[in-house]
Amino acid sequence: MAQINDNYLKLKAGYLFPEIGRRVAAYAKANPSAKIIRMGIGDVTEPLPATIVEAMHRAVDEMSRRETFRGYGPEQGYDFLREAIAKNDYVSRGCDIAADEVFVSDGSKCDGGNILDIFGPRREDNVIAVCDPVYPIYVDTNVMAGHTGAADEKGEYQGLIYLRATADNHFSPAIPNQRVDIVYLCFPNNPTGAVATREQLAEWVEYAQANESVILFDAAYEAYITDASIPHSIYEIPGARDVAIEFRSFSKTAGFTGVRCAYTVVPKTVMGHAKPGASDPGSRGAGTSIPLHQLWNRRHTTKFNSVSYIVQRAAEATYTDAGRQQVRALVAFYLENAKLIREGLISAGLTCFGGVNAPYVWVKTPKNKTSWDTFDLLLKEANVVVTPGSGFGISGEGYFRVSAFNSRENVTEAIGRIRRVV
Amino acid sequence: MAQINDNYLKLKAGYLFPEIGRRVAAYAKANPSAKIIRMGIGDVTEPLPATIVEAMHRAVDEMSRRETFRGYGPEQGYDFLREAIAKNDYVSRGCDIAADEVFVSDGSKCDGGNILDIFGPRREDNVIAVCDPVYPIYVDTNVMAGHTGAADEKGEYQGLIYLRATADNHFSPAIPNQRVDIVYLCFPNNPTGAVATREQLAEWVEYAQANESVILFDAAYEAYITDASIPHSIYEIPGARDVAIEFRSFSKTAGFTGVRCAYTVVPKTVMGHAKPGASDPGSRGAGTSIPLHQLWNRRHTTKFNSVSYIVQRAAEATYTDAGRQQVRALVAFYLENAKLIREGLISAGLTCFGGVNAPYVWVKTPKNKTSWDTFDLLLKEANVVVTPGSGFGISGEGYFRVSAFNSRENVTEAIGRIRRVV
Repeated sequence: MAQINDNYLKLKAGYLFPEIGRRVAAYAKANPSAKIIRMGIGDVTEPLPATIVEAMHRAVDEMSRRETFRGYGPEQGYDFLREAIAKNDYVSRGCDIAADEVFVSDGSKCDGGNILDIFGPRREDNVIAVCDPVYPIYVDTNVMAGHTGAADEKGEYQGLIYLRATADNHFSPAIPNQRVDIVYLCFPNNPTGAVATREQLAEWVEYAQANESVILFDAAYEAYITDASIPHSIYEIPGARDVAIEFRSFSKTAGFTGVRCAYTVVPKTVMGHAKPGASDPGSRGAGTSIPLHQLWNRRHTTKFNSVSYIVQRAAEATYTDAGRQQVRALVAFYLENAKLIREGLISAGLTCFGGVNAPYVWVKTPKNKTSWDTFDLLLKEANVVVTPGSGFGISGEGYFRVSAFNSRENVTEAIGRIRRVV
Repeated sequence: MAQINDNYLKLKAGYLFPEIGRRVAAYAKANPSAKIIRMGIGDVTEPLPATIVEAMHRAVDEMSRRETFRGYGPEQGYDFLREAIAKNDYVSRGCDIAADEVFVSDGSKCDGGNILDIFGPRREDNVIAVCDPVYPIYVDTNVMAGHTGAADEKGEYQGLIYLRATADNHFSPAIPNQRVDIVYLCFPNNPTGAVATREQLAEWVEYAQANESVILFDAAYEAYITDASIPHSIYEIPGARDVAIEFRSFSKTAGFTGVRCAYTVVPKTVMGHAKPGASDPGSRGAGTSIPLHQLWNRRHTTKFNSVSYIVQRAAEATYTDAGRQQVRALVAFYLENAKLIREGLISAGLTCFGGVNAPYVWVKTPKNKTSWDTFDLLLKEANVVVTPGSGFGISGEGYFRVSAFNSRENVTEAIGRIRRVV
């Protein structure tokens, strides 16, 4: 009798975005004439830049001719892309990251979940901390991996440490006053749009060094940083390459949510610990430090077969002069949306955070309504879909997230409608 | 101090194909003028069919225009592809499989590893059986997931049940005489090229029903079946949709090893069991049967973000009339290679299996040499790369695998060289 992974049964009703999808679909079905504007899920709307389109056509043509056809590529990604990433995203910013520390993948959501494969599977192996509010994937994948107990009545899981991000701490949680082995950080933050200063990140690196913790740093939105003093990568902090894994994506920069390309940096100097005697007799290296790079490389080559060649050429094209310019223009377009949202909602009397160094505006609900009540209100009265803050954790209650990923027309129209409702 | 997943330390030196890659690279470096022909890894060599190339160009163009641009698609794959798969690969062959039981992915290697996420994580949860010889991924991913003990001196892992496939049983292992909860089957088989008859598959389905086991059925090579009496899908067997998950891929049919698209079928009627009290207090459904479809859907939506839209359109194009014809021609080309390899090696006095309903020829080593000795011999004396049979398990010792995925010219040249050496 095949036994299932019981940990799945601890999961709450559904991942946030499918739940939003269900509510929107039900409303749309009941109100077929409603012109719904979706500012909920952070999905890009603008077409792929021309240079990227050209690169993809070229790659498709290569695949159509025997002499240039490509079968399996290296599981970690083609050198041309790994080298472009290391050079342009890291070395150019003074970060000591080599091409073979970059693992190309089909998405940060995938990597952020899969990374847990290389960490201790038993609940007692690691103390794991997430921010609250949090990108739900970090919590759900830990639940699925058996790293938590059951959820309490508030929806928080036993065993996870929640680092509260509130208006009081400018949505940048304080360093925990206990030992934590693995900590997830996301800056610019999804959902709050907050950024971390160099000093704040340096404190995290120092904390991780002192506790031999690993920082899982999600920098998916780094391209949206407009303030020159804010680091784009955790590796801009001295010592970070000994303690941090960084996740990045082409989704929100080059508009790749439907194209699928991301990457994860695992420096060769980040170590994990193998407990003495924890593994079975006959295993190698028990009781020693093991480079996480070696484990992730094994995971990546065993359970992944890299990204479509055509997609890798598309990602490479974002680093050409023309590609870079076009990507910058895309980002600037969404940032202008964020500014309009922010200013529009502030002028309607709402309290807004984020939206300056991030494509998300984090908004206090009107009249202290709950997040889901506000979601339903805006869906029904304004036909605008936002993301309820409480979907990201209990500190998100009383907020909603507005995504800047939309056409200018929709942004203007949506802001107008929200203003009329609140 | 972050603890690693110690199970990784039980893994043997490296996944088979990287090891082959290392040996070939070392030889090539030492012998730069050697014209090495790679018949080792099963990687396609012929360009993408024209209809697929056209579909990809069209999809790239759609992504370049705002009105047809696509961001995130459904995690499970677009309906257009799921429906084409259900209709053409299943319903047309009398299998009762619905579109929403099809999960599109970026590769069968990925799915075959990831599927373990939904099964009991503890070593004692499930008795797991693999065939020997076996596609190494099935073993390695179980080791990584902690489902085994350490490897013994022969490289076999404690706790796994190995079903021996030998010349005596025509490389189709007997039904085990003990209870097994999860069993991996692969027909047409990689590496032996053996197929399972309808009667043999029916016995497996009956066994799984009696033991409430789950069959993980790898049908990646079904397109190579030339014998009309051999089932292409396990779902051709009555009752299979209650006990089997099937993996399929576009890699070896449409030449997608570098394009990346596959799918997994999880019928809604396949159940797994949640132990009473196994999960923490507060969990739902303990002690009951749970549809694996529900769990895999949760895994897929949480840890995966679907396949590039362009790639999904390419996969869809394989089901058009023209696409189907072109894919059939591709498969026929590789099958003709298999025939040439088989006949050439037989006429050189070697004993060959497979290669009739599969793109792999499974060859007895000359003079009872070991598999790796034969690998090294053929690499050094013939400059031909084959796959050592022992890399697939101890019953593979004394065999090597020759892949039919190559140009006609290379196949002819390689066979001539091997004949001169043996």
